Amino acid sequence: MTTDSTSASPLALLGLGDMGTALARAWLTAGHPLTVWNRTAAKAEPLVAEGARVAASAAEAVAAADLVVVCLLDDASVGEALAAAELTGKDVVNLTTGTPAQARERASWAGQRGARFLDGGIMAVPPMIGTPQAGGYIFYSGDHALFEQHRDTLAVPAATRYVGSDPGHAALHDVALLSAMTGMFAGITHAFALMRPEQEVKPTAFAPLLAEWLRAMLGMAESMAQQLESGDYAEGVTSNLAMMAAGNATLEATAEEQGVSGKLLDPFMASMRERVATGYGDEGLAGLVDMLRQR
Amino acid sequence: MTTDSTSASPLALLGLGDMGTALARAWLTAGHPLTVWNRTAAKAEPLVAEGARVAASAAEAVAAADLVVVCLLDDASVGEALAAAELTGKDVVNLTTGTPAQARERASWAGQRGARFLDGGIMAVPPMIGTPQAGGYIFYSGDHALFEQHRDTLAVPAATRYVGSDPGHAALHDVALLSAMTGMFAGITHAFALMRPEQEVKPTAFAPLLAEWLRAMLGMAESMAQQLESGDYAEGVTSNLAMMAAGNATLEATAEEQGVSGKLLDPFMASMRERVATGYGDEGLAGLVDMLRQR
Ligand SMILES: NC(=O)c1ccc[n+]([C@@H]2O[C@H](COP(=O)([O-])OP(=O)(O)OC[C@H]3O[C@@H](n4cnc5c(N)ncnc54)[C@H](OP(=O)(O)O)[C@@H]3O)[C@@H](O)[C@H]2O)c1
Ligand SMILES: NC(=O)c1ccc[n+]([C@@H]2O[C@H](COP(=O)([O-])OP(=O)(O)OC[C@H]3O[C@@H](n4cnc5c(N)ncnc54)[C@H](OP(=O)(O)O)[C@@H]3O)[C@@H](O)[C@H]2O)c1
Repeated sequence: MTTDSTSASPLALLGLGDMGTALARAWLTAGHPLTVWNRTAAKAEPLVAEGARVAASAAEAVAAADLVVVCLLDDASVGEALAAAELTGKDVVNLTTGTPAQARERASWAGQRGARFLDGGIMAVPPMIGTPQAGGYIFYSGDHALFEQHRDTLAVPAATRYVGSDPGHAALHDVALLSAMTGMFAGITHAFALMRPEQEVKPTAFAPLLAEWLRAMLGMAESMAQQLESGDYAEGVTSNLAMMAAGNATLEATAEEQGVSGKLLDPFMASMRERVATGYGDEGLAGLVDMLRQR
Repeated sequence: MTTDSTSASPLALLGLGDMGTALARAWLTAGHPLTVWNRTAAKAEPLVAEGARVAASAAEAVAAADLVVVCLLDDASVGEALAAAELTGKDVVNLTTGTPAQARERASWAGQRGARFLDGGIMAVPPMIGTPQAGGYIFYSGDHALFEQHRDTLAVPAATRYVGSDPGHAALHDVALLSAMTGMFAGITHAFALMRPEQEVKPTAFAPLLAEWLRAMLGMAESMAQQLESGDYAEGVTSNLAMMAAGNATLEATAEEQGVSGKLLDPFMASMRERVATGYGDEGLAGLVDMLRQR
């Protein structure tokens, strides 16, 4: 997408690490006027030839723009970098990874300083930025008017997904997706470990079967969601917890046979057993969600 | 698929639990001549009206058929049911869930008794049997000539996937896929738990985002496979272990904020940290596979 540079809001970007540099290039490629700042100034130099204006300080970059995008290491570096900047009347979009609570605190901090605030969670790696076909996107939450006003500008580096006015919700969606992915990778790691001793089964022959199976089983996420929403945890259950827990014995015995530690799967299997033992064997997985909650 | 009943091998099915009954119905619907046996005889009665012949004992069912399909509770029940049967010259296909070692032992047990043997792992629930569009299938491994000869008959209840002559490989593929799914469900459970306190985020609105993300991340299985095969664990890495391990701190802090136990993800995160600490931070996930192996 090419932004009409005569009407585009002056934009400042703070942070030129791997991600910040990718964001900068996407806006410069789209012809968007851009002021950049980085703590280590050398990282800004290559961008000058591509059309960026370089500010000598974060405060100077902020002063030059209406819309300020921040992509630094962590929340503490955001506070440090913006400490001396005048934020009154500015629109601040924070793409720095943090927790939901950090985003909420940063939102009220910005509000107290007279700025509108939007938090973002980047669901992409740098090579996917400015490459819409790569499928990356950015979750946004917080000030909806800010999002609507700058929607086209924000859509230049990656597709946008606004997930509500609570400024913590972009980070929460980001973390929830990464957490689920962590569990999935743990399962995939265990599966490859089981196959490792078998010379005749090539990992690249096994991987497509694995990916196809997990893809097919993703429907379970929708059915868990239905159960959580209706409160009827036995709704639409085809394989209930009791059957899954019984099957786990074969999974454990096979890990043992193949010389694979069961430690990545043990905690979830223990939860399933506990849930069955307390009388919920005819339900699906939704009840395990509640078991994980500590208050 | 309709089998030409004049040329079809006489088929016996031992076991009419939920899965056995579904298999029986698929063959009967296809017009395949079928003799059934079940320990509790009452379960066979409804199938008589659908065209099944009922045998009074497992030995009698085996005697009436060339091809004997077994779908019982577990490996021990297979040994029990077939103890008195004459297996010489028979083709035995065991669809009972078990470990790879059980399948290998069962194969040599059958061989000693003069039978050819094929083991199977059913990747479907009973409602998917006889319903090709549901996408279920059965892994087979063991005697390849047996598989080729009965391929069309075996394809009636569900699509077939032959995964090699080692009779343990069907069970191993089955267990590996279920193990990976267990990890994925653990991750999904954690993700829903993180979202649970947020009244404004409906589970059914979150689930499609979650499923889409996990689907997109499945490409990682293929890249892990490449790494395992080449032995170059840094091959094609976009997010390396060090970056993932650093990001885990935000995942852990968010779980804490949202009142969610980290126990389902802790073991995998600990493995990632350990691998980074021992100097492999620039690699991808493949090295974690080796860490899980105990001999
Ligand atoms: N890279 C990814 O794949 C990816 C994906 C999704 C989200 N993200 C998020 O995007 C953000 C940036 O990531 P990145 O990959 O660009 O990280 P990076 O390459 O490590 O860059 C970190 C940036 O933060 C700056 N910084 C660190 N401490 C600072 C401080 N106290 N004051 C001012 N600036 C400071 C660094 O400045 P110097 O140059 O002076 O050190 C640098 O510009 C992170 O929150 C990350 O979680 C990254
Ligand atoms: N159901 C599924 O979703 C599913 C999916 C994939 C694989 N499988 C596998 O398919 C197999 C059968 O499952 P299912 O769902 O049909 O189980 P089920 O409904 O519990 O039926 C168990 C069957 O085993 C028989 N049995 C148990 N112990 C026996 C013994 N000692 N001697 C003879 N027969 C005995 C039972 O006979 P009685 O009627 O006399 O008790 C019954 O026919 C299992 O290995 C299972 O893991 C099932």
